[in-house]
Amino acid sequence: MAGKPTLAVIGATGAVGAVMLQILSQHKDIWGDIRLVSSPRPAGRKLVVRGEVCEVIPLSEEALTGVDVALFLVPAEVSARWAPIAAAKGAVVVDSSAAFRLDADVPLVVPEVNPHAARIRPRGIVASPHDTTLALIPAIGALHAEFGLRELVVASYQAASGAGREAVSALRDQLSLVAGTELGTGPGDVRRAVGDRAEPFPAPLALNVVPWSGTLQDGGWSSEELGLRDETRKILGLPRLRVAATFVRVPVVTTHSLAVHARFENEVTVERAHEILATSPGVVLYDDPAAGDFPTPADVVGTDPTWVGRVRRSPDDPCALDLFVCGDNLRKGAALNSAQIAEAIAAELPF
Amino acid sequence: MAGKPTLAVIGATGAVGAVMLQILSQHKDIWGDIRLVSSPRPAGRKLVVRGEVCEVIPLSEEALTGVDVALFLVPAEVSARWAPIAAAKGAVVVDSSAAFRLDADVPLVVPEVNPHAARIRPRGIVASPHDTTLALIPAIGALHAEFGLRELVVASYQAASGAGREAVSALRDQLSLVAGTELGTGPGDVRRAVGDRAEPFPAPLALNVVPWSGTLQDGGWSSEELGLRDETRKILGLPRLRVAATFVRVPVVTTHSLAVHARFENEVTVERAHEILATSPGVVLYDDPAAGDFPTPADVVGTDPTWVGRVRRSPDDPCALDLFVCGDNLRKGAALNSAQIAEAIAAELPF
Repeated sequence: MAGKPTLAVIGATGAVGAVMLQILSQHKDIWGDIRLVSSPRPAGRKLVVRGEVCEVIPLSEEALTGVDVALFLVPAEVSARWAPIAAAKGAVVVDSSAAFRLDADVPLVVPEVNPHAARIRPRGIVASPHDTTLALIPAIGALHAEFGLRELVVASYQAASGAGREAVSALRDQLSLVAGTELGTGPGDVRRAVGDRAEPFPAPLALNVVPWSGTLQDGGWSSEELGLRDETRKILGLPRLRVAATFVRVPVVTTHSLAVHARFENEVTVERAHEILATSPGVVLYDDPAAGDFPTPADVVGTDPTWVGRVRRSPDDPCALDLFVCGDNLRKGAALNSAQIAEAIAAELPF
Repeated sequence: MAGKPTLAVIGATGAVGAVMLQILSQHKDIWGDIRLVSSPRPAGRKLVVRGEVCEVIPLSEEALTGVDVALFLVPAEVSARWAPIAAAKGAVVVDSSAAFRLDADVPLVVPEVNPHAARIRPRGIVASPHDTTLALIPAIGALHAEFGLRELVVASYQAASGAGREAVSALRDQLSLVAGTELGTGPGDVRRAVGDRAEPFPAPLALNVVPWSGTLQDGGWSSEELGLRDETRKILGLPRLRVAATFVRVPVVTTHSLAVHARFENEVTVERAHEILATSPGVVLYDDPAAGDFPTPADVVGTDPTWVGRVRRSPDDPCALDLFVCGDNLRKGAALNSAQIAEAIAAELPF
């Protein structure tokens, strides 16, 4: 052993992979070898990490041999197949996909909130939550620790990049079609102008909002809406937490926002909520509407924390808070949380 | 008397006024004279209503003399001054501004929900709700009549035109600045590109969402958020209804959307909610996500009803529904509701 663990980044050439390479280059360098792994097509490409050029190798059993920590930043079906192989070869897997998030034998971890959960991993796999959950949890976990969470009602304002790189291209194409026009005032005029460029969204996103993301589940719910409920319950250890979410895509490139109504067991005050949020790791309190201070995606994008503003106590319920949170879905929402989990695991490996 | 009532449209040259002239030209013609009134600057302009060219006259006591119904489509400070003058001269005033909405002696009316309230008007004034309230009430009023409303949690997706014509120009300018660029991925890059073109919004709206509209009130609430609560309570006659709202502006030209969590006294089913919504006046049920059918602002703009989709029963509360509603803020949200009130009043005048 060279004294430092070997890391494999599977999905190094994707959008989240690109952010991961930035993060690995900026964070304290705790890794020995870093292997960059991808699907066969982009393999062979050369990428820079920690200031060094590194050739991307194709995903294979060999690529996963001799790895201490394997970071999977790939679609769920790729993780479902390859993460158990990596684990069988002795790697601890950190998976950012939905494949294992609700597996009872896989911990679902947000290091600021439930770091110890990562130590118990019967399948050798640790999962990172969905990007929308991650925008919420650092703030709501801190408030839960103080006030005791009972119910969440969430409405999302989700960015295009949460749906992938092609989705960002589609939004930019659509914006070019509507900019400089008078569109947006007649029934269907945006839809006609955008034509078949709406995809991968189920309706045009430029000059519009689209109340759908994920796949259709029972009762008209989307998979992402139910996922927020299931993941929040699991991370906070609250199996009966009430969660109702409506997920809406908005014409923002990166950074998810959430309007959150949170009801607690105990009475809340804005002052105490401010104190908690101002001192919680991974959270920035930015809440002074008199000065125009509240988070917006355009200001939060590219930063690591969850930003929280518009903190109000419900006028009709002394146990409820309303707030608005923003989190970069490519950083904390994907790459950063996985990197934090991997670093915490590496620190406890026998090197 | 010519047998038909005289109507005055105060604010005929504004954005809502333009929609009002369309509506008056399309609806059954119940009016005698229609006077178009404005502030002094645009007075003298010629506009078309009911197919006839009509010269706009300046607002004055004379302009309000001999009027049966006076439709005020002007800022609250103009209504506050002139509506009582019109009422004193014998007109029934229908006011679309915030000036009188919460006045105990002024009924606040949505004709599909509380039409009879318009008959009791101690000040001679009837108020029309805020555009965001109007996107919500036709649907939620119908559900309340069946299930008994107890609590609302609302997150808004408000269009630029709710903030006036200059706001739409600002959004279009901003979109031209960001279209065809790679903006939206670095902290503050949109803000720098937009520069001082953000106004009248407190932050850039292109490629962004802005969690603020209205003026700052106690506890960090905005006037519009509290207004939704107060107006909904008044219209539905539920003075203790719990309402918590977070209002967010989105880069849409026209049509407000709302994510709504509604808790009722009685158990709900999606089937029964669908039946109610499908048969309620002023409501279109558009809810088949398997077919991609849910309302979006781009499809709803220019239409009269409130569109409702994404109707779901809360997975954790058999008395709660989650839904997504869209309503054109310039039609039902302003001009149409005022026109409907005026028409209902005119039908009961002694002509």
